Amino acid sequence: MRLSSSPSDSSGGEGQSGRLFGPLFADPGVERELSDVAMLGAMLEVESTLAHVQADLGIIPIDAAEAIANVCRAGAFDLGELGRQADASGNPVVPLVKAIGAQLPVDAAGWLHRGATSQDVLDTALMLTARRAVRVLRAHLRVGADVAFELSTAHRDSVMVARTLGQQAAPTTFGLKAAGWLVALDAAEAGLATADDALAVQFGGAVGNLGALGEPGLAVLAGLATALGLAEPTLPWHTDRGRVLGLAAALGSACAALGKIGLDVVLLAQSEVGEVSEGAAGGEGLAGGAGRGGSSAMPHKHNPVDAILVRSAAMRAPGLVSTLLLTSQQEHERGAGGWHGEWLPLRELLSVTGGAASRSRRMLAGMEVHTDRMRANLEATGGRLMAEHAAAALAPALGRAAAHDVVARCLARGGNLRDVLLADDDVRAHLEQQQLDGLLDPSRALAAVGPLVDRALAAHHLLPDAGS
Amino acid sequence: MRLSSSPSDSSGGEGQSGRLFGPLFADPGVERELSDVAMLGAMLEVESTLAHVQADLGIIPIDAAEAIANVCRAGAFDLGELGRQADASGNPVVPLVKAIGAQLPVDAAGWLHRGATSQDVLDTALMLTARRAVRVLRAHLRVGADVAFELSTAHRDSVMVARTLGQQAAPTTFGLKAAGWLVALDAAEAGLATADDALAVQFGGAVGNLGALGEPGLAVLAGLATALGLAEPTLPWHTDRGRVLGLAAALGSACAALGKIGLDVVLLAQSEVGEVSEGAAGGEGLAGGAGRGGSSAMPHKHNPVDAILVRSAAMRAPGLVSTLLLTSQQEHERGAGGWHGEWLPLRELLSVTGGAASRSRRMLAGMEVHTDRMRANLEATGGRLMAEHAAAALAPALGRAAAHDVVARCLARGGNLRDVLLADDDVRAHLEQQQLDGLLDPSRALAAVGPLVDRALAAHHLLPDAGS
Amino acid sequence: MRLSSSPSDSSGGEGQSGRLFGPLFADPGVERELSDVAMLGAMLEVESTLAHVQADLGIIPIDAAEAIANVCRAGAFDLGELGRQADASGNPVVPLVKAIGAQLPVDAAGWLHRGATSQDVLDTALMLTARRAVRVLRAHLRVGADVAFELSTAHRDSVMVARTLGQQAAPTTFGLKAAGWLVALDAAEAGLATADDALAVQFGGAVGNLGALGEPGLAVLAGLATALGLAEPTLPWHTDRGRVLGLAAALGSACAALGKIGLDVVLLAQSEVGEVSEGAAGGEGLAGGAGRGGSSAMPHKHNPVDAILVRSAAMRAPGLVSTLLLTSQQEHERGAGGWHGEWLPLRELLSVTGGAASRSRRMLAGMEVHTDRMRANLEATGGRLMAEHAAAALAPALGRAAAHDVVARCLARGGNLRDVLLADDDVRAHLEQQQLDGLLDPSRALAAVGPLVDRALAAHHLLPDAGS
Amino acid sequence: MRLSSSPSDSSGGEGQSGRLFGPLFADPGVERELSDVAMLGAMLEVESTLAHVQADLGIIPIDAAEAIANVCRAGAFDLGELGRQADASGNPVVPLVKAIGAQLPVDAAGWLHRGATSQDVLDTALMLTARRAVRVLRAHLRVGADVAFELSTAHRDSVMVARTLGQQAAPTTFGLKAAGWLVALDAAEAGLATADDALAVQFGGAVGNLGALGEPGLAVLAGLATALGLAEPTLPWHTDRGRVLGLAAALGSACAALGKIGLDVVLLAQSEVGEVSEGAAGGEGLAGGAGRGGSSAMPHKHNPVDAILVRSAAMRAPGLVSTLLLTSQQEHERGAGGWHGEWLPLRELLSVTGGAASRSRRMLAGMEVHTDRMRANLEATGGRLMAEHAAAALAPALGRAAAHDVVARCLARGGNLRDVLLADDDVRAHLEQQQLDGLLDPSRALAAVGPLVDRALAAHHLLPDAGS
Repeated sequence: MRLSSSPSDSSGGEGQSGRLFGPLFADPGVERELSDVAMLGAMLEVESTLAHVQADLGIIPIDAAEAIANVCRAGAFDLGELGRQADASGNPVVPLVKAIGAQLPVDAAGWLHRGATSQDVLDTALMLTARRAVRVLRAHLRVGADVAFELSTAHRDSVMVARTLGQQAAPTTFGLKAAGWLVALDAAEAGLATADDALAVQFGGAVGNLGALGEPGLAVLAGLATALGLAEPTLPWHTDRGRVLGLAAALGSACAALGKIGLDVVLLAQSEVGEVSEGAAGGEGLAGGAGRGGSSAMPHKHNPVDAILVRSAAMRAPGLVSTLLLTSQQEHERGAGGWHGEWLPLRELLSVTGGAASRSRRMLAGMEVHTDRMRANLEATGGRLMAEHAAAALAPALGRAAAHDVVARCLARGGNLRDVLLADDDVRAHLEQQQLDGLLDPSRALAAVGPLVDRALAAHHLLPDAGS
Repeated sequence: MRLSSSPSDSSGGEGQSGRLFGPLFADPGVERELSDVAMLGAMLEVESTLAHVQADLGIIPIDAAEAIANVCRAGAFDLGELGRQADASGNPVVPLVKAIGAQLPVDAAGWLHRGATSQDVLDTALMLTARRAVRVLRAHLRVGADVAFELSTAHRDSVMVARTLGQQAAPTTFGLKAAGWLVALDAAEAGLATADDALAVQFGGAVGNLGALGEPGLAVLAGLATALGLAEPTLPWHTDRGRVLGLAAALGSACAALGKIGLDVVLLAQSEVGEVSEGAAGGEGLAGGAGRGGSSAMPHKHNPVDAILVRSAAMRAPGLVSTLLLTSQQEHERGAGGWHGEWLPLRELLSVTGGAASRSRRMLAGMEVHTDRMRANLEATGGRLMAEHAAAALAPALGRAAAHDVVARCLARGGNLRDVLLADDDVRAHLEQQQLDGLLDPSRALAAVGPLVDRALAAHHLLPDAGS
Repeated sequence: MRLSSSPSDSSGGEGQSGRLFGPLFADPGVERELSDVAMLGAMLEVESTLAHVQADLGIIPIDAAEAIANVCRAGAFDLGELGRQADASGNPVVPLVKAIGAQLPVDAAGWLHRGATSQDVLDTALMLTARRAVRVLRAHLRVGADVAFELSTAHRDSVMVARTLGQQAAPTTFGLKAAGWLVALDAAEAGLATADDALAVQFGGAVGNLGALGEPGLAVLAGLATALGLAEPTLPWHTDRGRVLGLAAALGSACAALGKIGLDVVLLAQSEVGEVSEGAAGGEGLAGGAGRGGSSAMPHKHNPVDAILVRSAAMRAPGLVSTLLLTSQQEHERGAGGWHGEWLPLRELLSVTGGAASRSRRMLAGMEVHTDRMRANLEATGGRLMAEHAAAALAPALGRAAAHDVVARCLARGGNLRDVLLADDDVRAHLEQQQLDGLLDPSRALAAVGPLVDRALAAHHLLPDAGS
Repeated sequence: MRLSSSPSDSSGGEGQSGRLFGPLFADPGVERELSDVAMLGAMLEVESTLAHVQADLGIIPIDAAEAIANVCRAGAFDLGELGRQADASGNPVVPLVKAIGAQLPVDAAGWLHRGATSQDVLDTALMLTARRAVRVLRAHLRVGADVAFELSTAHRDSVMVARTLGQQAAPTTFGLKAAGWLVALDAAEAGLATADDALAVQFGGAVGNLGALGEPGLAVLAGLATALGLAEPTLPWHTDRGRVLGLAAALGSACAALGKIGLDVVLLAQSEVGEVSEGAAGGEGLAGGAGRGGSSAMPHKHNPVDAILVRSAAMRAPGLVSTLLLTSQQEHERGAGGWHGEWLPLRELLSVTGGAASRSRRMLAGMEVHTDRMRANLEATGGRLMAEHAAAALAPALGRAAAHDVVARCLARGGNLRDVLLADDDVRAHLEQQQLDGLLDPSRALAAVGPLVDRALAAHHLLPDAGS
């Protein structure tokens, strides 16, 4: 196709937004697949492929199919004009078919869009563009997972404090934290792969029963699926939006996984914690550039900008998924609003997930891990984080609740845990100093951490695309 | 400002979307206020006004303020480049301040953005553009209400059937239905007026406590509010997003009111009901154009396209409002994601409400009301809709439940209600034929309808902008 | 367990709600699995199984495990008291462990809850109760699908009108409509089966790294999974809520599928359409009872109550799923609010889906199909629904757009389609009367409908549980 | 009313939930107003008041009204049975009217529920119970605001560090932070007061046009509003749910304000920050009890349990508000699902807001403020937080960007800010040591903080209920 432009195209307010804020939340690669140009291209691809499939099946003349394909490939189309004309019919396929037809010889024009309805073209084009966008963002997730794999491997034994409900709780390693991110990223990618596989061609004609083509319509449905590489559905799915919901759910889960990583990074990067920071140069992927994370007012600040933007993207997924669940309940053989209401939120959900995946990848790749601060934070509480182990050792003798109370009483006295425990009669009655030293050694709490990390690393290796 | 463009501006995927689908869901007037250009203009207006206010207060030199205002008015800015640079800091104000500064003489550059933080500029610019967009959409709501007023007046006595739970229930008038739309539109507009009035200037400096300016900062806050015509908040509201939520709620309520009208129109326009249809030419407002509502495949169809698009817009509000409720819970003195996550959903919510308001106005203005079909549908059930009145008349004698059962028994026999009632012994024992004829006269059920309509019309007349 | 009750139990407001509205939206079988009693039972089952697994592995004495299991099975627990005490710790496991411990001999009490954290017990119990609830609701979905299968089979050739955007569009069969419901129900059930299989045991100890047990903790994790029949996760998933989201998404999709059926039924049951009605007696499943669908005021009404309640349940899923997407983004090693915020919405989502599935089943089983009304509605428009076929036949000669216009021009003249077409010169120039009669025969539009139905029926037969 | 109980009442699963988790998220006072008993009581109050109003207007006999009021006051009702019977009609008013009628003498039974429809009774009862619940939760908000007022007063000059995007940014005071909470709580309460005032009586009869009563119906509408203390609407609002949305929005905003406070407290209570902690004993309001915040596994932990539960409640509001926006778009004269779908989410939203308000009040009342930790955290960075002031002082001479860069370069050298600035040639060229000492004095950054706090305190004093 060639894009032409109507004279009035620059006067309207539409299409003028997105340059100022868009780059903050989106990924250029994903956006490219979601652009108007890509959508128009996909719709033309559907019309062209439909003609070819029907010619192969003898439903329309081969010459007509060639002519249609030529116009779809090399014809001139005015995006702005198509958009404006869409207003009369409620979707851009009606004016697009008219625009193709106007560029066809009369004997070919009658064979265009044969047996199809607007929704066949639009849904199939949406699935094609969604798949292409999903594949770009899946690549970001895979690279992000690979980086998490490397972080987990490198820091398998980097001791840090684990935190529950905002409080320091017990020793763990940064390798295990990164392994948690890895497992979630792998699961998110797997979920998207499943949803991707389910994306199906749409072809049912005016009311979804192949009424205009009759039984040969079934062969067209199958042929179109094969030619476009999409799944063949049992029935046309004009008002059965399960596939769209499957994709939405996978995108929502991916955003949740990415948002959790962003949240952890924001918390670990707090001034008072300081255990990780975002690299000023950024990793590969989105262009990095020096000086990332600066403040307009405060020269001393280094903000975890990527983590913040990942979180902001992840915050948008719940609302978008809920919109798609709402719009999916559609009337009879074509939804009176629900179908139309689905287009932009689906695109937006792909876009925010793409941005979150892309930024997470950069954030992980450029992450600076401060193991010294990790160790310092762990040691700041004088061994109190091992209190659970002392309580557990006393429990068989005193009972669970009493042991817990004895240790809590010791902690309330303040000071180094070992010292206050050794000063307590109840403790000394059941534990010797040597025993206690063993119990309070942080490495004691870490015996299962390495093996857990290894499970996550091994599971990542087993993935089809691991190491890609 | 002059817009310049960097060479790479057309290569990226950003900003390329919106021309194909945008016109279906948006209103050009609202979009103009929400565009990148409008947002950039508003940010420059804030910087410029800030300088003027500070010069008036003697905080910065008057010459510096003039120089800043000149650059804000006539300087060159590259939207695409600002957007790309925003990625490093997480918002576009940082590169914008740099771009203004680069065009200022050195002795003025130091007085730019004095005591301000990025969020001061961005929030205030958001409020300015939101207000301007809201005023456009409020005008659409007001015109829509005026049209509903006219429909209600014209059809005050056009009898039709009322439907509950999808079932024909009792007689009513189309005037009352339109009065219901009117009351809801008036309430939606009033809610937006209240939210509009609450939109406030943002000015707090780096951490929201006017730290860089000290006490004179309070006068800057007040001066900025006055100069920009926004409310002056008690405190800077960097992480107190109640005002944003107030606006979101009013937009959500407006969408709900519009969505209900769209839903009613879709249902009334059903082939089997046929009581209203959308005018093919459309009303004023959005360009109408002949042939609206046609189908790509089916020449006999006339779809209620505006109602469908109104519904699709209204379906997006719940998710967008929920996103803003989520993002509004922000950390400490600046949200780590929530603030950034708010910008696009707020813009989107304004946009879909604008589109819904604009299309509703056109839909109402072009509406064709088929009073003949209304009467035919009312009469199709042989008077059965008056059954409630017969039961009520029997109730004092038989008790409520027994009266209900007697009438239901009669109805179960089929046929015209009057006939089956007259054939029933229990009925005849308590009601004479003449009484029954009075009871079953549909006009009997409509005695309060006119007065109710008049209440709605009178309430509309009392509004400040009525008849505008 | 035995339930005891504290004296103050009836004074509070808690737990007093649900009897008045609950039966409208819930399914008794699903509710039973979600009740407080079921949840308490599942938590006790986890503690008991944990002790047995640890005894088998030699981590705790066998006698202690026996004692713990005895208390879990036969001990006395006061639900109200547990709930009130939960307030101090933020979850009911802390007081439950205390309550079990208080009923244990001292030498067993120290071995209780060994190496576990509250979240291990609560998450695992949630998964157990969720699975049990899911299995009840899956059975409802399966029976519903079986009924849709029967409807589709019985009405494979019952001709009716298909409707798009609320307008009569073209002929189809009720068999295909029911086949669409069938395919969606089968997909919903399959999605729930996948989510069910993924439900995993939770066991990670205080910070999710098995710190208190060390490497033997891995064997406990595996043993617990086996004993409880839940999946074994790669890592403890305290703050990786992907599994919960997978379940939520499957429930949301099920609600969407059910909501679409409810919507279709409401529309088909409209007085002016009248093609289906809900059986007054209802089908099997929920108790039916005579007189369902009556109105308190209007004796003549027969409301599609089940369809309405299915829709109302389906309307709640989008918000609940979005809440779970929000709460799933959790801090560090335990979420500070997100974990707690998940419990009730997950329960609620299971409950509304259960209610929707149960009511849909009853609605489908009791559905009365009025094929006479279907045929009458189809014929009401004098053949105009076949206009697409005339246009398609003219297209090769006239071009697509011109053919569409010719037919639209004929339709505008009003009257029976065949007559107006035959009266048109352009039509007669290209089509003979005999050809036209063939084109306008509704059965021509139905050639692919039977085969499409058969595809859906065959796919249902291939399911593991088909016909169960 | 007297509550009777059917034999099967304890066998079902319904109504058995809420004791285990309910107390964690709810407030007993709010729950009492939302309970089944309260709802039943309100429905009876509506029926009784309706009869009285109609008797006063001469529409029904005074004796009948007395009899109806007697049964409503002293009759026996079985909640479980009403709930079960509701299933047949889709709402509990139908069986309730039947149950009242069954206890009335025959000559009174016919005058019951005169001209009313189920929705009149249910909506009005919902508004009554909602108002009563709102008033309890508004009292919690007011007390919470009063405590925030006291915290703000007491800590007007308690210096602490302000944090933006998770990073230490500049000095502020805890008084200003608490003043921010105060302003948000006051606004939340004011929003609820406005929504409360708008709650209106519902009375329209079967289809919302007073069809059964005719013009006297208008007087009934007005009389019912007066008698029940609810607003009188312009029209019956069966399918105009703006009032419900207004209440939902105010509840959502309140949750957002409370959630932000909870979030701040969780962050301030982090082990590494330690600036506030929750009192172990809790404040007044909900019963406190010693040992709040303990962990089942870790004796050393003190979790900010109330803040966590407040956050978890606030996380539920976005989804619930979105559900109500969805359900508010209702068909014709009675919604086919939307009305029914509104009841439980509205109740749930009231409940979670009540719980959040109640816990916030306790959290604020019991809050321990650690000013020593605040000062230590502020001083930990060696004056770097004052870097903005040095840059601002250099800006007039060097330009804004260059000044920012000079200071950033100094900061990069590490060490105490004053020392590195004094060692820099560019700095020394423009600033003398004495000037610099002035610039870097934290009190310099706090000049506006006291006056800002005073604005918030004064605004609170101006409220109608201040100090109550």
